[in-house]
Amino acid sequence: MISVKGVKIATTNCGIKYKNRDDLLLISFENEANVAGVFTSSSMPAAPVTWCKNNIKHGSAKALIVNAGNANAFTGKHGEEVVLKTAEKISETLPCKNSQVFISSTGVIGETLNYELITSAIPNLVKNLQDDSASWHKAAKAIMTTDTKEKLVSKTCKILDKKIIITGFAKGSGMIAPNMATMLGYIFCDANISSAALSVILREITEDTFNSITVDSDQSTNDTVLLFATKESNQALIENPFDDALEDFKKTLKAVMLDLAKMIVVDGEGAKKLIEITVQGSENKKQAKDVALSIGNSPLVKTAIAGCDPNWGRIVMAVGKSCPETSPEKLIVKIGKYQLTKDGAKHPEYEEKIVHEYLKNSEVKITVDLGIKVCQEDTKATIWACDLNEEYIKINKDYRS
Amino acid sequence: MISVKGVKIATTNCGIKYKNRDDLLLISFENEANVAGVFTSSSMPAAPVTWCKNNIKHGSAKALIVNAGNANAFTGKHGEEVVLKTAEKISETLPCKNSQVFISSTGVIGETLNYELITSAIPNLVKNLQDDSASWHKAAKAIMTTDTKEKLVSKTCKILDKKIIITGFAKGSGMIAPNMATMLGYIFCDANISSAALSVILREITEDTFNSITVDSDQSTNDTVLLFATKESNQALIENPFDDALEDFKKTLKAVMLDLAKMIVVDGEGAKKLIEITVQGSENKKQAKDVALSIGNSPLVKTAIAGCDPNWGRIVMAVGKSCPETSPEKLIVKIGKYQLTKDGAKHPEYEEKIVHEYLKNSEVKITVDLGIKVCQEDTKATIWACDLNEEYIKINKDYRS
Repeated sequence: MISVKGVKIATTNCGIKYKNRDDLLLISFENEANVAGVFTSSSMPAAPVTWCKNNIKHGSAKALIVNAGNANAFTGKHGEEVVLKTAEKISETLPCKNSQVFISSTGVIGETLNYELITSAIPNLVKNLQDDSASWHKAAKAIMTTDTKEKLVSKTCKILDKKIIITGFAKGSGMIAPNMATMLGYIFCDANISSAALSVILREITEDTFNSITVDSDQSTNDTVLLFATKESNQALIENPFDDALEDFKKTLKAVMLDLAKMIVVDGEGAKKLIEITVQGSENKKQAKDVALSIGNSPLVKTAIAGCDPNWGRIVMAVGKSCPETSPEKLIVKIGKYQLTKDGAKHPEYEEKIVHEYLKNSEVKITVDLGIKVCQEDTKATIWACDLNEEYIKINKDYRS
Repeated sequence: MISVKGVKIATTNCGIKYKNRDDLLLISFENEANVAGVFTSSSMPAAPVTWCKNNIKHGSAKALIVNAGNANAFTGKHGEEVVLKTAEKISETLPCKNSQVFISSTGVIGETLNYELITSAIPNLVKNLQDDSASWHKAAKAIMTTDTKEKLVSKTCKILDKKIIITGFAKGSGMIAPNMATMLGYIFCDANISSAALSVILREITEDTFNSITVDSDQSTNDTVLLFATKESNQALIENPFDDALEDFKKTLKAVMLDLAKMIVVDGEGAKKLIEITVQGSENKKQAKDVALSIGNSPLVKTAIAGCDPNWGRIVMAVGKSCPETSPEKLIVKIGKYQLTKDGAKHPEYEEKIVHEYLKNSEVKITVDLGIKVCQEDTKATIWACDLNEEYIKINKDYRS
């Protein structure tokens, strides 16, 4: 774990839901950070999401506050008041402008959140802000709900010969589906990049990382990913998102975001396996992604893989329901390196036992060639999903008890 | 159970998969029956589906044969041969034309089906054809796979003062999702209605019955519903599907098909509850149905209901991900008769305990008003789904063992 210069962290238990663990995180930026964000496309966005969507236009951040245990979603006027009171308390304590305070909440939907639990904790949080490595781990833990593991990734890269640090953390375990896939995710770097450029970069990379994972096809009301740049690297400001100097940065940022995205899938509620699904031979990328998600969201495919059962007919079913443009003769399905189909039927050399053994791995690959067009890099898509186990049901039958 | 005049039935065990139960059904029509059908929209249709789609154009049926235990789907050229050999054996034994033989298969996808098991059983099946009530129960049982109960419904109605009998049976338990929802369904009547008129009527009613149910959002490669009319009622031929004389017939046919559709949901793999979801206040019927299915297919909603947990925030989530046109203030969510939301937040008089008690019922109603337009009969939609339990996972983790 590598701390990002200019970022300070404090966590505490403020008693919203959990006992004996921190559930409130405050991050402050010593100097103003540039910021970009992507948010849930739900028509029922939580109050903090609406707040962040408004603030992101200004592109400047001084603080981020996140609580776990209550989503402050579908909470009406009161939910808006919670957000305003929180921002006001931070802006007068730090101090900074209201528009520089970013807020996230995660937990149950529709429950009133007592903002005094948050506002009364803020003065002490501000006093206790730290920039050491241990604080980053505490931050990643404080935002967890049904997550079983913290999700924290750190990498370095270069921009214009200056070393840049990118560190991010995320949470998410259930209610995870593509289209701003997730969850909460925060990525911090010390680069000097304008917020407009950050926004373009974040959007593009989100599509192939957080927006390419699925746990249960359900999309949250609170999904938020924020990318902060503290500008402490002393490198010349970059305002053009397509500047060649950003090549290494973009590659590294994508690696950080993909690592975090996969960590979410692996920690999917009850999940035991990471399933990587690549669809190619398609008309275009959207078609490939739609088919990949149809496979990755199919409860029958996910339960078969949970049982290490090479019941590949279910993959054929999931292709069939999502892609009218293909047909049995065109389709090639592979599990791992094993080709299972040929000429619209089971491959003559298919050996079930070998594939059954392969499926015992904790990471499983499925490749589907739709046979519509010749395979090309820009028309294929990869998504990551997890298997479906009894534990998912157990966790979600009594989430709130 | 009321037998339909002109229909004869025989069942046997032919050894495809199951022991100690019948797995092959033959139905013959003494005179040619008029027939209409609807089929899976999958681009991976099973060989018998492609066969029936071709034959249905002629609108005339002499026989229906159905096997359980092997879907004959994704079986390439060999699958086509299985269907042809089966049809030829029946057409020479009965006798009739190949185009008058309708064929369905249900079971595992991608496994080769040994047609000799079927063809060698046909002569005895033809010899043993019966028209008694017990045979209808045997028919409904012979086509079952993971179903735990037979699904057989019988009702009477009138056309032009003649009594008409409508009897149908169906199978389906997993891989059940809308868009030719399911499964196999066969409905028989003794009315004298042209196959063209039957086709219009069947399509319309399927949309609100079999195409309005969901167990697991997965759509089969073998979905088939066939409607046969044996013309034995001696009523004057009706060729216009909109003839007023068909009013009672249509109402009764819909009741038969809806009963069968609900039986499938109730027998959904591991299901304990029938969930009826009505969405109204919508722009149009498609929007209402999309939102209803988003709720009915949400694993988080389905598990909450399995646990009798009134976690209505998950219903809000499912609306939010499927309907960009609404917003929190517009939305009204009811469970049973209890209104849970108001002004974009929890209803002030909502009492969780009462709704928790209500959710212990085996039938549960959810009503959502999107608040986009004033409620109208022709813009609302109702679908039926089931809860999601550990048993679904257990059944599907080792379907084939």
